[in-house]
Amino acid sequence: MADTAPTQDKSESAPSVQPQAEGGAAAPAPVEEGASAGPTKGELKRRAKEAEKAKKAAEREAREAEEKKKREAQDAMDEAKQNYGKLPMHQSTERNGRTYLKFPTISAENVGKPVVLRARLHNMRPQGAKIVFLTFRQQTQTLQGVLVISGEKDENQVSKQMLKYAQNIPSESIVLVEGTIKAAEVKSCTIQEYEVQIHKLFTVVEAETLPFSIDDASRPESDFQRMETEDIQFSRVSLPTRLDNRVMDLRTPANQAIFRMQSGLCQLFREHLNNNGFTEIHSPKLQGAATESGASVFKVQYFNGTAFLAQSPQLAKQMCIAGDMERVYEIAPVFRAEDSNTHRHMTEFVGLDLEMAIEEHYHEVLDLLDSLFLHIFRGLATTYKHEIDTIKKQFPCDDFLFLEKTLRLTFAEGMAMLREAGATGSDGAPIGEMDDMSTENEKLLGRLVREKYATDYFILDKFPTAIRPFYTMPDPTNPEVSNSYDFFMRGEEILSGAQRVHDPAFLVQRLKEVGIDPKTMEGYVDAFRLGAPPHAGGGIGLERVLMFYLKLGNIRRASLFPRDPKRLMP
Amino acid sequence: MADTAPTQDKSESAPSVQPQAEGGAAAPAPVEEGASAGPTKGELKRRAKEAEKAKKAAEREAREAEEKKKREAQDAMDEAKQNYGKLPMHQSTERNGRTYLKFPTISAENVGKPVVLRARLHNMRPQGAKIVFLTFRQQTQTLQGVLVISGEKDENQVSKQMLKYAQNIPSESIVLVEGTIKAAEVKSCTIQEYEVQIHKLFTVVEAETLPFSIDDASRPESDFQRMETEDIQFSRVSLPTRLDNRVMDLRTPANQAIFRMQSGLCQLFREHLNNNGFTEIHSPKLQGAATESGASVFKVQYFNGTAFLAQSPQLAKQMCIAGDMERVYEIAPVFRAEDSNTHRHMTEFVGLDLEMAIEEHYHEVLDLLDSLFLHIFRGLATTYKHEIDTIKKQFPCDDFLFLEKTLRLTFAEGMAMLREAGATGSDGAPIGEMDDMSTENEKLLGRLVREKYATDYFILDKFPTAIRPFYTMPDPTNPEVSNSYDFFMRGEEILSGAQRVHDPAFLVQRLKEVGIDPKTMEGYVDAFRLGAPPHAGGGIGLERVLMFYLKLGNIRRASLFPRDPKRLMP
Repeated sequence: MADTAPTQDKSESAPSVQPQAEGGAAAPAPVEEGASAGPTKGELKRRAKEAEKAKKAAEREAREAEEKKKREAQDAMDEAKQNYGKLPMHQSTERNGRTYLKFPTISAENVGKPVVLRARLHNMRPQGAKIVFLTFRQQTQTLQGVLVISGEKDENQVSKQMLKYAQNIPSESIVLVEGTIKAAEVKSCTIQEYEVQIHKLFTVVEAETLPFSIDDASRPESDFQRMETEDIQFSRVSLPTRLDNRVMDLRTPANQAIFRMQSGLCQLFREHLNNNGFTEIHSPKLQGAATESGASVFKVQYFNGTAFLAQSPQLAKQMCIAGDMERVYEIAPVFRAEDSNTHRHMTEFVGLDLEMAIEEHYHEVLDLLDSLFLHIFRGLATTYKHEIDTIKKQFPCDDFLFLEKTLRLTFAEGMAMLREAGATGSDGAPIGEMDDMSTENEKLLGRLVREKYATDYFILDKFPTAIRPFYTMPDPTNPEVSNSYDFFMRGEEILSGAQRVHDPAFLVQRLKEVGIDPKTMEGYVDAFRLGAPPHAGGGIGLERVLMFYLKLGNIRRASLFPRDPKRLMP
Repeated sequence: MADTAPTQDKSESAPSVQPQAEGGAAAPAPVEEGASAGPTKGELKRRAKEAEKAKKAAEREAREAEEKKKREAQDAMDEAKQNYGKLPMHQSTERNGRTYLKFPTISAENVGKPVVLRARLHNMRPQGAKIVFLTFRQQTQTLQGVLVISGEKDENQVSKQMLKYAQNIPSESIVLVEGTIKAAEVKSCTIQEYEVQIHKLFTVVEAETLPFSIDDASRPESDFQRMETEDIQFSRVSLPTRLDNRVMDLRTPANQAIFRMQSGLCQLFREHLNNNGFTEIHSPKLQGAATESGASVFKVQYFNGTAFLAQSPQLAKQMCIAGDMERVYEIAPVFRAEDSNTHRHMTEFVGLDLEMAIEEHYHEVLDLLDSLFLHIFRGLATTYKHEIDTIKKQFPCDDFLFLEKTLRLTFAEGMAMLREAGATGSDGAPIGEMDDMSTENEKLLGRLVREKYATDYFILDKFPTAIRPFYTMPDPTNPEVSNSYDFFMRGEEILSGAQRVHDPAFLVQRLKEVGIDPKTMEGYVDAFRLGAPPHAGGGIGLERVLMFYLKLGNIRRASLFPRDPKRLMP
């Protein structure tokens, strides 16, 4: 029947159709009250259309009712229906004490044995009418699950309905699986020698609409390069999109590994310092005065006054030394109100700071810091090999090179290497011995050092006094240089430190020399009037170390929830 | 010669005296030019006085010159002069690689052997003309030093000048000592079986005026009670004075021990969690929105906008769980803009937070938290015995009691114990089963539990839903109570935790039920839309645990540089 040019007959027959539509989706056409002259032609046309619609709806409904009945009948016959489905919200209803399989522990011993596991549904792939492959994910590991209708009638049987249910679970949902581990050969998962044959499959938590897929978020740059030569299409997930949806982004294998390594780096840092007589401290981030420079400090409304966020624990850790704590370290947030929107600036980062009293020479601290980094590098390379390999799949990079005996150069030697290589200052002129070293020249020096000494890690000692803070102790024989040092990784500074001026009179003199009114620094100077032992220390940026070690290219990738001038969420 | 009624003669003779006074302290009287009528009587009197003054000055000067000459001659004869004195400012001039004695390592093996040590000069006590006892201090330990003129002429001889120098070194100065360890019996020091016979004594750093003495700052309350019955006088150092001069205060043995234990507590916390598959996280303290309650959040001027200081890492750690990190913990500052000036409130404290995905039941977390506290208590009692003993000398308290199997009560059971003991609410009426538990009643319950079960540590489970945050998961069978718990030490809450609502729809429902517009919590709810596993966790206040464990009486004593509404310094 054509739906054009309806006749009046059809229009009039419409009311008789209406009862059939009762309770259906199509509403009956309203009767125009007070229209005594009878329906117009247009009105008749409209009615005819609606009658047709109602009829179709009625037919569809009848069909659906029939299907429902059939489905219910089938469901009644679904002998697997107790083996799958969506679980009620987890409220800790019971505790069975079952052991839940962790993917990294799967071994030949599991083969043929029943397991219970909770995992993300990473993806799903039906094969024919009787098999569905499901990829389960736990952190950095994936395991293949096979759901197959075998035809056998036992408690583990799989029904068509169960297969269909499995195909409709949204990706990233959390599922509870019971099954049997089998030996297998699986190329698409990280667990390649085993798979799980699924007997039961429940959804614990259903994921809603996803901002992007884990697969897309896990691609290395080379995948996108392939798009230029191959007939493939991948979605690139930008860094801002990732950070906006950080919960999702954190699930990528690379991120799982990055933040395990971040944690590991802190453990290695503390382990070495604890073994060397250090005490961990927690200094306040709310300060009554701006500690280092007024320009880059965040102001806090503090009841009726103002406080400032600590730009470093510098004074606090030095006060601890003056307070006889001898060797202290702190891992804590550091705040910098710098409006820098670069790949290596954040407004909040994690500072690894330490300070220690020295007996004879600040090189006692230099030696300790060096041994600390070697401990970290060795620890990462051994304990976190799986993580490094995982990260490299998305962010390929050369192995981090370091020597058994760390290369130490003086600042002057570094500058000489740069001059020899023809490096210039920002003005294009050849660099002078006492110039500050630009970021570009630091990177160049890193390359020169790597070529000459085959190391990505080295120390520069004896920086010019003029380019270090006022509290840096000058060299005893040449006041133009100071007892200060920077550590470098892949040509970028990751630690800055020095022997500090512990003598209050000399501290006042230094303040005057650099043009700071000592009155504004009274609190700092006073801390030394009660007698502070000679001491030295340093500060390390956690995210920087991780970023350069793994060559992540952007510091935000080494921070869980990075903060910059434009980002305060999530 | 009397210095009254000077004659004119005397006055006139004054000019002849002037040359003698040249370069002396007394300035010559100015000649009044244009005074043609000759000096007045008053003027003559003045001149006579000045002449007399000048003469005396000249005499004094001659005497001083004589003494100086004598002293220099003596100095020239001082055969010990290379063995003492003030060292130039320590600028890392040389590195000898000598081993510096640490007091805790002193043993019979040192006896008769030479040592080098650096220490604070704690106090000094001369005995007769030939002996000075010096007490040296390193952190919690003191060692007696003996400087004695033996008369023997060797490289280690001590001179009268050296003895005098030693007596004039200001307390709290840092000294470098060379000497020989001898067996001894010393009651006044912590090292009681040995002393050091001093051969060389140099001052590395001189302390300036002290706000109070370490001895006064180290007294237990009982010392002051003795003042009522004995004829003794001690200076009491108030807590504000201590905190104003925290560098000095930190040097007391009790404080040295308290902050070592604070560090140790964090190590024990991490050790247990690392061994149980946790990852350490660092979440941002700068937040784009107030997380829990607008009233008690600090506002930060963030470039042209506003940020807030995190009141807890609640959302961040839950996002990590939604991001598949499974088990996370954080040790970091927590900020509370509460204008509370009590013994147990600070505006910034250290939060020990953890969150973990659960398989079957939130008691998995309860069990883990319990095992964590037992690990901490056992670790403190064994590894920090010396520190606990040291602290008890100033802050005596009963040993902290805990059971091998921790007592767990439901909130209802706790309330029943309180009712039985006749406890009332703030209105004086008997307490109801679902009332909140007041601080007073918490303390009473602590006492009741200690009496009945002999433990200072127990768990209350199943708090009423109404008195917990909206994100707390209700009990599956009785929605009036929730899957939440508090841990108590000495009758005060030190941990609060719960299973969280992980279902976004239910979270919205809960928000509405408690009268919060879900729109204001969109960021929080959205974190769960991507699917978060069921999870639970808790938050611990580091300083509170330390304060209650050691019964310090004021939380500021457990914080290095405490912050409260009235204190932002040092």
